[in-house]
Amino acid sequence: MSIALVTTIAELRARTSEKLREVEASGGSKSLGLVPTMGALHHGHATLARRAVAENSVVVASVFVNPLQFGDAQDLARYPRTTDADLALLDEAGVDFMFAPSVEEMYPDGEPSIRVTAGTMGEIHEGASRPGHFDGALTVVSKLLHVALPNEGLAAPGGRPAYRAYFGQKDAQQLTLVRRMVADLNFPVEIVPVSIVRDPDGLATSSRNRFLSEQERTAALVLSRALGLLASRAQAHEPLDIASAEALVRSAPGVELDYLEVVDPQTLAPRAENCQDTPFTGEAIALIAAKVGSVRLIDNMRLG
Amino acid sequence: MSIALVTTIAELRARTSEKLREVEASGGSKSLGLVPTMGALHHGHATLARRAVAENSVVVASVFVNPLQFGDAQDLARYPRTTDADLALLDEAGVDFMFAPSVEEMYPDGEPSIRVTAGTMGEIHEGASRPGHFDGALTVVSKLLHVALPNEGLAAPGGRPAYRAYFGQKDAQQLTLVRRMVADLNFPVEIVPVSIVRDPDGLATSSRNRFLSEQERTAALVLSRALGLLASRAQAHEPLDIASAEALVRSAPGVELDYLEVVDPQTLAPRAENCQDTPFTGEAIALIAAKVGSVRLIDNMRLG
Repeated sequence: MSIALVTTIAELRARTSEKLREVEASGGSKSLGLVPTMGALHHGHATLARRAVAENSVVVASVFVNPLQFGDAQDLARYPRTTDADLALLDEAGVDFMFAPSVEEMYPDGEPSIRVTAGTMGEIHEGASRPGHFDGALTVVSKLLHVALPNEGLAAPGGRPAYRAYFGQKDAQQLTLVRRMVADLNFPVEIVPVSIVRDPDGLATSSRNRFLSEQERTAALVLSRALGLLASRAQAHEPLDIASAEALVRSAPGVELDYLEVVDPQTLAPRAENCQDTPFTGEAIALIAAKVGSVRLIDNMRLG
Repeated sequence: MSIALVTTIAELRARTSEKLREVEASGGSKSLGLVPTMGALHHGHATLARRAVAENSVVVASVFVNPLQFGDAQDLARYPRTTDADLALLDEAGVDFMFAPSVEEMYPDGEPSIRVTAGTMGEIHEGASRPGHFDGALTVVSKLLHVALPNEGLAAPGGRPAYRAYFGQKDAQQLTLVRRMVADLNFPVEIVPVSIVRDPDGLATSSRNRFLSEQERTAALVLSRALGLLASRAQAHEPLDIASAEALVRSAPGVELDYLEVVDPQTLAPRAENCQDTPFTGEAIALIAAKVGSVRLIDNMRLG
């Protein structure tokens, strides 16, 4: 194994600086890629990691189950922790450092007084079902972006910072909010979105899929099918017929639809009223969330 | 004049990078100091700027009246703007760049969706009188800290980032919150507190002092006298007798006391109950706010 497991901020900074100096000494171009995760890694994460490895000379993947973004203590306690498997997967992908801090290392003074807040964009869709979730997520992402920010100068052509962080498009609202945060607060990092990885049958990969029984897994396929229905209608410039897509989801046994919404990709504002009865034009994302048995799943698809 | 006036983020980044490379080429140690201000500069700001110049190879002072931290549109409109005088004062202090962006440059998409929030520490003292003020202040300070963050590597002994931002102790609550933000969100900058600068008669320098009539200016001296009373009692380890200090303030013509509180320096939590009747021990800050005529003034003093 060539990956190193690092658990403190000080060690991470020292080790990445050292590695960047080695890159420079051997004539390479210094750049750093960060892949923030909550662990329980699957092949979706592997795709993120490989992309970061292909594009940067040094790559850090963080594994931290952030208590701040869990409203429900039970959900937090049950979130899967698979450190050894995570380390192996990241090593295989070519990641240099797995940063797995303790809660005390990230929050030495307990819950932070000062936070990043997502505002109204964090109160819709996933935020409506999970109050405070996105404030917690943005706060920890802000911390991680700064913890991994290299003190070394990064030589990027055209003066752009060669510091990149990789986020999956599966958490579409989180990705949109992180990009908005980086723009609104001028963080010196480029956010790189990475496409959803699906199993051959269409199910979006998720750390929570492991909780599905075989029957539930089959029922869960209705999420991507409903999105696919909207996507093919969008491609044909037909009215989206969201009601039919919703009905499809509701027809699956044990599936409880939370929301299915067609939103603007930048603002996340619902745009269903613009495309329900009229031929679809432009760009949108269809977002879906549903409970399958006791497991809450989300998925999304780009329309147009 | 050797100072350069810069109005865009892109130009600031290009110019400071260029300057840092010059420093390196001539064998100097690269470091950057930032002095965030709202302009209307006085000799308190000059002290901040000279300190930054003494400690860093490149110094940026920002001048930006941040609409986000004004609850009252009239207060914002009337806030003094003295660009030419500010430039001369900063040049005299040896500052390299005055960064004076437009509101559009700082908020290209209008009011930012994502903000930094001060939480409950921002709702007491000044925050109680000015709802939302500290969220607005922290949001713009976060932006400025990142806008001026050099992309160049900074060579600091011991691996500490040689990036420093200077804040006056007069805005004690703001300083405490900024330090808390930098710690809680892991921003790679050292916050340097600079002592309050007072006129010979004791009045703390403030951009708002210019609005005081001669009579009001005399009445305003009661703020620093009341704080001095508490400080001398603290030094003698006597009970603080806040009531007498408050009575002194209320005795001055045209002075309307908002609050006089003795707080913990780290948390800003009131600790009056611990020192009102018992001999003073430990460390605290006494905070005062009052309206003198139509001008709201604040001041504070370290106790113990």
